Amino acid sequence: MRPNLAPDTGLAARLFDDLRARSFDGVGITREAYGPGERMAHALVREAAEALGLDCTADPVGNLHMVLSGSDPAAPRIVLGSHLDSVPQGGNFDGAVGVLAGLAAVAGLKAAGIVPRCDVAVMAIRAEEAGAWFPTSYPGSRGALGRLPAGELAIRNMVTGRTLAEHMVEEGFDPGFVARGERVLSAENVAAFVEVHIEQGPVLDAEAIPVGIVTGIPGSRRHRAGRVHGQWNHSGGTPRRYRADAAIALAEFAVALDDAWGRLEAEGHKMVCTFCTLATSAEAGFTKIAGEAGFMLDIRSVDPRSVDALFEDMHRLVPLIESRRGVRFDMGPETGSIAAPMDAGLRAGLRAAAQDVPVLEMASGGGHDAAAFAAAGIPAAMLFVRNQNGSHNPAEAMRMEDFDAACRVLTRWLVERVA
Amino acid sequence: MRPNLAPDTGLAARLFDDLRARSFDGVGITREAYGPGERMAHALVREAAEALGLDCTADPVGNLHMVLSGSDPAAPRIVLGSHLDSVPQGGNFDGAVGVLAGLAAVAGLKAAGIVPRCDVAVMAIRAEEAGAWFPTSYPGSRGALGRLPAGELAIRNMVTGRTLAEHMVEEGFDPGFVARGERVLSAENVAAFVEVHIEQGPVLDAEAIPVGIVTGIPGSRRHRAGRVHGQWNHSGGTPRRYRADAAIALAEFAVALDDAWGRLEAEGHKMVCTFCTLATSAEAGFTKIAGEAGFMLDIRSVDPRSVDALFEDMHRLVPLIESRRGVRFDMGPETGSIAAPMDAGLRAGLRAAAQDVPVLEMASGGGHDAAAFAAAGIPAAMLFVRNQNGSHNPAEAMRMEDFDAACRVLTRWLVERVA
Repeated sequence: MRPNLAPDTGLAARLFDDLRARSFDGVGITREAYGPGERMAHALVREAAEALGLDCTADPVGNLHMVLSGSDPAAPRIVLGSHLDSVPQGGNFDGAVGVLAGLAAVAGLKAAGIVPRCDVAVMAIRAEEAGAWFPTSYPGSRGALGRLPAGELAIRNMVTGRTLAEHMVEEGFDPGFVARGERVLSAENVAAFVEVHIEQGPVLDAEAIPVGIVTGIPGSRRHRAGRVHGQWNHSGGTPRRYRADAAIALAEFAVALDDAWGRLEAEGHKMVCTFCTLATSAEAGFTKIAGEAGFMLDIRSVDPRSVDALFEDMHRLVPLIESRRGVRFDMGPETGSIAAPMDAGLRAGLRAAAQDVPVLEMASGGGHDAAAFAAAGIPAAMLFVRNQNGSHNPAEAMRMEDFDAACRVLTRWLVERVA
Repeated sequence: MRPNLAPDTGLAARLFDDLRARSFDGVGITREAYGPGERMAHALVREAAEALGLDCTADPVGNLHMVLSGSDPAAPRIVLGSHLDSVPQGGNFDGAVGVLAGLAAVAGLKAAGIVPRCDVAVMAIRAEEAGAWFPTSYPGSRGALGRLPAGELAIRNMVTGRTLAEHMVEEGFDPGFVARGERVLSAENVAAFVEVHIEQGPVLDAEAIPVGIVTGIPGSRRHRAGRVHGQWNHSGGTPRRYRADAAIALAEFAVALDDAWGRLEAEGHKMVCTFCTLATSAEAGFTKIAGEAGFMLDIRSVDPRSVDALFEDMHRLVPLIESRRGVRFDMGPETGSIAAPMDAGLRAGLRAAAQDVPVLEMASGGGHDAAAFAAAGIPAAMLFVRNQNGSHNPAEAMRMEDFDAACRVLTRWLVERVA
């Protein structure tokens, strides 16, 4: 690091504290997408960016761009960012880390008197927590990239019941921008997108490594509303051969698919397979054999061939269990997302910038806005910060020393790239 | 059958219709134990018995005894009966069949001018549906037999929240009788108890046989509130080796125990093993790995050695799954009941009385009041009537021709025994 160059992690620490104080809901952190929590967070961050002298504008879908101007305004910009919304009763770091790391890095450049060759924008992206508010992926980043289909404006917020378009209007933005297929960011005007994010998983903590360099964001295939239909019977009066037990059929399906996952991993596939829920239906109870059960299945990998291989196993297993157990599986609709590999050049640059910071190359588990940039043909990369207790829960934790390490890597990479 | 002797199945058919009309709840049949539904049924049946000239009395815990007097009032009586309560939204036949079969048989004797050698009592027993109202076994029959521990008077109705003692008082009965350890029935004054009941299972229907002669009532060992504790994690961000997935551990436990049951059956054990419920906890949801799951396990056999053998397998399996999956099982309290073999002499008499009616000797699946009589040292037996769609649900069905066949067997046995 140049002697006079350091990320302003003190600024970030103060902003983390302010964000927490203003969005603690009594249990955890709640910052509603296109709602009061996200609005508060954008205002807070904007105020800090303006104090740094950054040029701040909100785009028509509400993303905030905080720009350190470069010497060549025509050169494609570097974008550093992530989201500021949270799940209900979540943690303070999921999302905010990427925005505040960007601000810390840009503040470091500014304090060192460095004028970058191109604009460097810190971007606070809207509404990333799709599972909690709007059931779609990355409406904020895809909206800026002109890649949000107009039809998704009609998606309803799972809490308020109002549409994405209505929420945009309420917050002072313009869903017509999406409807007209316009964009503010593209592969022509963005040279790279780098997102810092907490890991959300236990790997870095278990491996005692502070920072991860992400190889890719997994794609997924999901059955969010699978059912098994058997036959309700008396648990005492129904011998084994007369049963059509939905509970045991579902258990067998879960174990068989978990075994198949284990075999594929042993063959070198990297993936995860989770029965997020698995339950006999509400009518089940004592002295009954369950006639119905349901499940939510989530299979993810950076390599779609791995997900497809497990789906092939699944499609082979289901009829076997149906015929052995006398039940019928209704898998329900399949949903999913496309995998997004991270840019090899950016990853190499980040590895070089790591210097004394130990890093682990690893796949992301969850989805991130970086996937939307990659899908738009923009080189994208991510740094993971070691964290504790996962995310999406009030116990989510992160050590500031690990955040600082990630900021050092980001700042060194940025300077190499733009100075 | 003597030419002029036949059970009055027409009377039974009218009473089934009246019971159904007065306890249909819009979905199924509801006759609350020590509540309005059971009260209505007892009044209806008592009215019919009094019209037949039977001597009707309710005992201090509310069981109704409808007695055809014998020539020797000192001789131990024959008791024919079952219960009149139902589960909520259940069927019309579970329980009522045994009371109305008893009335049909006694009405047949009376119409044929037969004076039995001993009293023949038709007994409408209280509160057999323990799983639905009072979480204990056979409070009505055990109350009459002096075998209901006083402490169980404090058990609370799962719907009303009031105690068994409070319900007895509300219905005009005397819990003090139980508290003082008194009894009205014993091995000294009851020569035999015979209970007719729908099978509640699919065996007779599948085997195309109208009537079963029960070899025994199973005992059980149960874990009604088992839990598996794992670790909540993000489904995308947590690789296989870092997981402590309560859902998959529970599924593995269920499948392994089901496999162990299959092996024991192949070795000749007769038993049933049911995960009545099996479910990730309420906090589970999409993108989470389940940190907690629960189950209700019910294992039954007429032979306690079979149940114990499966419990041994279970106690061997649980630590293996705990160590492989990084979870902890909390089995919760174990409850259960003692198996009750049916009396060999009564079974032989019922076989002889079957004559032209095809019968199958079979174990009961569920528990029945006959188990309480057997436990009190009273010879007890049961006839099962073929039925459809199980029981404890509104679709429960029974053909009257099968009920009539069981009544013919019962009546012929009764005449052989007392005439």
